[in-house]
Amino acid sequence: MNPLLQDVGAVTAPLVELYKDLHRHPELSFQEHRTAGIVAERLTALGLEVITGIGGTGVAGIVRNGEGPTVLLRADMDALPVLEDTGLDYASTDRGVDPEGVEVPLMHACGHDVHIVSLLGATQLLVQRTVDWSGTLVVVFQPAEEAGGGAQAMVADGLFDRIPAPDIVLGQHVAPAPAGIVGVHPGPAFAGADSFAVRMFGRGGHGSRPETTVDPVVMAAATVMRLQTLVSRHIAGSDTAVVTVGQLHAGTKSNIIPDEATLGISVRSTDPEVRSTVIEGIHRIAKAEALASGADREPQIVAQESFPVLVNDVDATARTVGAFRAAFGEQRVIDPGAVTGSEDVGVLSTAAGVPLVYWLLGGVDAERFGAATLAGTVERDIPSNHSPHFAPLIQPTLDTGVAALTVAALEWFARP
Amino acid sequence: MNPLLQDVGAVTAPLVELYKDLHRHPELSFQEHRTAGIVAERLTALGLEVITGIGGTGVAGIVRNGEGPTVLLRADMDALPVLEDTGLDYASTDRGVDPEGVEVPLMHACGHDVHIVSLLGATQLLVQRTVDWSGTLVVVFQPAEEAGGGAQAMVADGLFDRIPAPDIVLGQHVAPAPAGIVGVHPGPAFAGADSFAVRMFGRGGHGSRPETTVDPVVMAAATVMRLQTLVSRHIAGSDTAVVTVGQLHAGTKSNIIPDEATLGISVRSTDPEVRSTVIEGIHRIAKAEALASGADREPQIVAQESFPVLVNDVDATARTVGAFRAAFGEQRVIDPGAVTGSEDVGVLSTAAGVPLVYWLLGGVDAERFGAATLAGTVERDIPSNHSPHFAPLIQPTLDTGVAALTVAALEWFARP
Amino acid sequence: MNPLLQDVGAVTAPLVELYKDLHRHPELSFQEHRTAGIVAERLTALGLEVITGIGGTGVAGIVRNGEGPTVLLRADMDALPVLEDTGLDYASTDRGVDPEGVEVPLMHACGHDVHIVSLLGATQLLVQRTVDWSGTLVVVFQPAEEAGGGAQAMVADGLFDRIPAPDIVLGQHVAPAPAGIVGVHPGPAFAGADSFAVRMFGRGGHGSRPETTVDPVVMAAATVMRLQTLVSRHIAGSDTAVVTVGQLHAGTKSNIIPDEATLGISVRSTDPEVRSTVIEGIHRIAKAEALASGADREPQIVAQESFPVLVNDVDATARTVGAFRAAFGEQRVIDPGAVTGSEDVGVLSTAAGVPLVYWLLGGVDAERFGAATLAGTVERDIPSNHSPHFAPLIQPTLDTGVAALTVAALEWFARP
Amino acid sequence: MNPLLQDVGAVTAPLVELYKDLHRHPELSFQEHRTAGIVAERLTALGLEVITGIGGTGVAGIVRNGEGPTVLLRADMDALPVLEDTGLDYASTDRGVDPEGVEVPLMHACGHDVHIVSLLGATQLLVQRTVDWSGTLVVVFQPAEEAGGGAQAMVADGLFDRIPAPDIVLGQHVAPAPAGIVGVHPGPAFAGADSFAVRMFGRGGHGSRPETTVDPVVMAAATVMRLQTLVSRHIAGSDTAVVTVGQLHAGTKSNIIPDEATLGISVRSTDPEVRSTVIEGIHRIAKAEALASGADREPQIVAQESFPVLVNDVDATARTVGAFRAAFGEQRVIDPGAVTGSEDVGVLSTAAGVPLVYWLLGGVDAERFGAATLAGTVERDIPSNHSPHFAPLIQPTLDTGVAALTVAALEWFARP
Repeated sequence: MNPLLQDVGAVTAPLVELYKDLHRHPELSFQEHRTAGIVAERLTALGLEVITGIGGTGVAGIVRNGEGPTVLLRADMDALPVLEDTGLDYASTDRGVDPEGVEVPLMHACGHDVHIVSLLGATQLLVQRTVDWSGTLVVVFQPAEEAGGGAQAMVADGLFDRIPAPDIVLGQHVAPAPAGIVGVHPGPAFAGADSFAVRMFGRGGHGSRPETTVDPVVMAAATVMRLQTLVSRHIAGSDTAVVTVGQLHAGTKSNIIPDEATLGISVRSTDPEVRSTVIEGIHRIAKAEALASGADREPQIVAQESFPVLVNDVDATARTVGAFRAAFGEQRVIDPGAVTGSEDVGVLSTAAGVPLVYWLLGGVDAERFGAATLAGTVERDIPSNHSPHFAPLIQPTLDTGVAALTVAALEWFARP
Repeated sequence: MNPLLQDVGAVTAPLVELYKDLHRHPELSFQEHRTAGIVAERLTALGLEVITGIGGTGVAGIVRNGEGPTVLLRADMDALPVLEDTGLDYASTDRGVDPEGVEVPLMHACGHDVHIVSLLGATQLLVQRTVDWSGTLVVVFQPAEEAGGGAQAMVADGLFDRIPAPDIVLGQHVAPAPAGIVGVHPGPAFAGADSFAVRMFGRGGHGSRPETTVDPVVMAAATVMRLQTLVSRHIAGSDTAVVTVGQLHAGTKSNIIPDEATLGISVRSTDPEVRSTVIEGIHRIAKAEALASGADREPQIVAQESFPVLVNDVDATARTVGAFRAAFGEQRVIDPGAVTGSEDVGVLSTAAGVPLVYWLLGGVDAERFGAATLAGTVERDIPSNHSPHFAPLIQPTLDTGVAALTVAALEWFARP
Repeated sequence: MNPLLQDVGAVTAPLVELYKDLHRHPELSFQEHRTAGIVAERLTALGLEVITGIGGTGVAGIVRNGEGPTVLLRADMDALPVLEDTGLDYASTDRGVDPEGVEVPLMHACGHDVHIVSLLGATQLLVQRTVDWSGTLVVVFQPAEEAGGGAQAMVADGLFDRIPAPDIVLGQHVAPAPAGIVGVHPGPAFAGADSFAVRMFGRGGHGSRPETTVDPVVMAAATVMRLQTLVSRHIAGSDTAVVTVGQLHAGTKSNIIPDEATLGISVRSTDPEVRSTVIEGIHRIAKAEALASGADREPQIVAQESFPVLVNDVDATARTVGAFRAAFGEQRVIDPGAVTGSEDVGVLSTAAGVPLVYWLLGGVDAERFGAATLAGTVERDIPSNHSPHFAPLIQPTLDTGVAALTVAALEWFARP
Repeated sequence: MNPLLQDVGAVTAPLVELYKDLHRHPELSFQEHRTAGIVAERLTALGLEVITGIGGTGVAGIVRNGEGPTVLLRADMDALPVLEDTGLDYASTDRGVDPEGVEVPLMHACGHDVHIVSLLGATQLLVQRTVDWSGTLVVVFQPAEEAGGGAQAMVADGLFDRIPAPDIVLGQHVAPAPAGIVGVHPGPAFAGADSFAVRMFGRGGHGSRPETTVDPVVMAAATVMRLQTLVSRHIAGSDTAVVTVGQLHAGTKSNIIPDEATLGISVRSTDPEVRSTVIEGIHRIAKAEALASGADREPQIVAQESFPVLVNDVDATARTVGAFRAAFGEQRVIDPGAVTGSEDVGVLSTAAGVPLVYWLLGGVDAERFGAATLAGTVERDIPSNHSPHFAPLIQPTLDTGVAALTVAALEWFARP
């Protein structure tokens, strides 16, 4: 076993309280002020050069440790408007205000709190053992991964003018797989994601006189049903596409037919042609359903976030997987295949023109959920990311997260 | 022409400002504090005995004018959570907070402001001309007609212990028919209404992994489509039923599949068997669609407001129609047939055990909208009650509203 | 009691075997060769002048009995492509070939066999008792009421040049109401009916590769669901409209996506504006759903049968109802209101420019089905016309059918 | 170039007429009497031992050519109930009768005629050049691949008792890829397929009185729409599943609501868990939609054909691909990935306990359709198998089909 890994437990034990604190106090995209403050404070205490406010609330820290490659480790910091229902004693009850000014519940329902703490732990380990490596460590705590603009905002705000140019970008995401496992897939590994806000225009009126109206609730419902056919009929069974209507809102009172309905649609795809087919289909269907309802006005469809496909560099992935296997054993390192989730970490590596290796970190209590794996044989009743029930097992998740970042970083540094 | 009607114009002219003021400041059901205050102040100024706070915000005023019948005239005071889009210079921009604590726009989208001002005007006219009639006038300004509990709340709060027992209940509602017209239908005239709040339970998760979730948006959309079949397949073509889903809400973000969806459903019917068929159908369909989605939990269906069918007393209607015809001429008094709208004014007459006559008051600019009538040949582009564009023509609507209440009341009083 | 009615039983008893024979051997529209032959033979045997082959298979018979009005009594003769499932010992097992050349089961599922036998019985009674009346009796046995062209075909084939001009047209239809009852509604009594054949064009292919096709099954299913909204959303709750998709056919094999789907749609309405709204809606929805599917070609919509609204002459109905009440008692004569069924008998009266009185004849075993009535309180489990389980109770249905035609005819003849 | 391949052109040229003849006269599954007769005659003429009537209409031929492996080459013979619309001068106009007794059009819409002729050509080539190989050749012409029971029927009828035990099973299928190409994928290469016949029970009645019925057309349409959600919501985006409703039939007349509707559903999957999810979903949805309609009776769901996943032996595939590359050049041999089509040829190799190699044979005019490939970049407007427009380019398709079978067989025989 790598001697450096012997210290992981000692590093993570005191971080568990920080993890619970971050979990209790989630913040929405670009609102991670408290979180970024804690991160900056911790990095400063560890002796790093710290830059704050990059792309809004982003934080970077630098450790210059002699000659050698520059390795960028990245974590994301934002949370989601989900009402936590985990029953954990450190569950969030915080509420926030979303960009439209609506008050919403808040939850770290995607595990970015795990990412933050793991990266803080790995930083500490690498700072403690600078004798074991040579080069420059850059740690990046990114805002707004959920909303999709965080990585781009940091790049646009001069990230790569303010930190040493990296030779590789590394990062990880907690997932509904057994805690202790890491999963890496070479090549296209996370789907591209596009989201759309759709407004469908009816004509409101009294609930008892639908004949004087154009009912936007029926229009929206028919649209939702028809959108299912994009994946079921217009995409090959062996191609990857997901079309989710995550939001549907219409009306203020049961006996008033409202003037309009709004839908929030999220699309995942790994192939440009499939992506085009789906996006054209959304436009075609929304327009046709408005026509079927006799609407006076075509729907308004506004493209919102667009994440590119995340592509792990094949050679760099092979090298990193080798290091993981050496450190964790063959059994704990799997290839989960490509997943339909999306990530904007690739914006950083693409902007820097360097390879990316990004992996999944198991977070599930394997004893409780049985033979779950990353590979799609995940039991269906494990609460998934974004679920109100999503609750990573603290250990060995944090230990593995700290160790994986450390092992991967060491692989890419020069030996002193 | 009835000499009393000669004074209508003089009474209503100064009330137009009050109408605009009330229109600018709508209040939700049971929140009509400002409105009730204005009403009480005006009634007091006219010299009536005034009782406030009946059933929450209800107001009653009494004029004792010698021997004779007691006539109860009723207006309702509440407004709706609709974002006004009339472009009127006296349009509402007020906002309120609904019973669930959500901030909503407010609008007098159902014309209760017309009802209030008409009743104040008729009261003034009758007070000015007490020589023309003998008996007791009771005017009732009711809260919460929209939410459906207002009449019942006043009855439960002892209305009929606090006012003289009426011999008849009279009232009116503004409608999308030409201003200047009154429409009265004997027998069942307004449909019964029932509303239901439905929660459909899915299982939330990440928008990219629907297979780990039970998608409540699809469940709700399928339910909306299926609910259409209640009217189209389960009710005879010649029977009357309306099933409207006026509200559908689910989700906070396009890439999060939410845990649940909520629907607000409104039902109209005029026949008890039809009503049962529809209500059973709502339960059956919601349950079946949850089953089709593989939900773990049956939907929760909560009955909310329930309005009985409004039945105009046939003989009393004939007598009142006779008075209207004498006052307004044959052409201005029509039978619009039964309508699918609902009203809780019948709760008052039923509780008092006396006849009800309730009529429609045209509010539309006939020149602008052409040959609109109450009788179902209404042009489809006239903004209907509850529409954001609903904008009664101030005159001759107010004059007709004041005159109709006065004429009907005089018909039922004794001649001195 | 009318002395003439004393002979009804004696006349109908031997006709029961004919009824069972006709029931066993149904014939499709314009194919009523055997039936017409039997009718012509019977009329000839009764001594009538008989004309056959009018409008294909139509038959007329004439009894000239002195001075007085000419009364036209009409029955229809055709059956339906339904697989009988009544379990009757005289159930049909015959099969026929429909106009598209497809072999189909045959059933008198709409009771035209009752109409034929009732009219033969009434003819016999009137022929036996010519002393009781004076005038000219014309009996018309019409083909193709179901397909809707039969009355028109007889008119076009010179019916009114070949028979004495009638002064009134009378007829009846068996219905799911208690046997022994007659139901008459003045004014518009049966809805107008329009039917449409719709072809929706997809693009066929292998069932495993929907992405290379345009799936017409999904297109048709979405269309069916959307068509429900015409009645539920585009027609007032108090207006009458029915839109039924009675046929939907697509595909030959589960793993072949077919090139097209065909729908047969039937529309009922009593108001021209409602009719237009529905028919325009069918076109709009079919077109929109083809668009939503990405079809290359718009649907083809072919109008087929069109029945006008059947309007009973108000005065003639009142006179006939008076005769029924005198003959049967008040209790057995009801007003069922307007029904959504359709009938082309009005084509005969309209062409002749004379009043029509057309009534419903109860055919249900009241003891078995309880308090069923014509008025819409029909128990839902009574097999309705066109059902495979439709089985009129032979008696007192035939007695009542014979008596009603006789009573109505006598009312319109001169007393000798 | 393999000298044997020099003779391919000479062998196939005279077979083109046979190809057109077979194409003109397609036969349904288990009805391939004419086809089997021609095959047996040709094999006999080539001097093979011929066994006919195996598993109904199956034919086997044997060439014993000294020591060495036994190689089984397989073709399938049946056609489909599709109305050909290719415009070819040798298009089929034949009609047949399907197992339910319905007359249907017939078409070789899946190219089994190409398979037959290619195998006859390869047989001739191998018989002509027995000097080039040593071993035993078995050629199998299988019935009923489309219906899915043909391979199993031959096995059950003692195929492997009647022919020498093979050491390998080889075969091919024409596909919408450029003619001249062969495509082979190691491992799971064709999806499993399951088909289901679903009867949904409503309650029939008159089209104007839906309220007395349970409408099975609406029930079926809602089911079709809901079935789309199995692939769109219940299967991971990266998993493979296809659910096609290839048949939907209900009703005989637009104004009769029928008693039932029937659906033919085809399912493709490559993973047992996905397969279970889909099949359970079909049952759940059909049941729930019957419930939503208020049906008295649950749907009847009958499992029909079930094809296992076709798995190409990885080592045997690599060896065969090597032979193809040597014979055709690298450019003409591709890996199309797994496809969602299904095949029952694996039943033969599994029953024999030997490896299978099964490949796709391009059949498309590359000049006309451009850069089409097997790999999913197939242009969407190429008529796919089972389309009425499916028309393989005769040459170089037949040459390639003959050559591929010959090359593959020679690879597995011993060199003399």
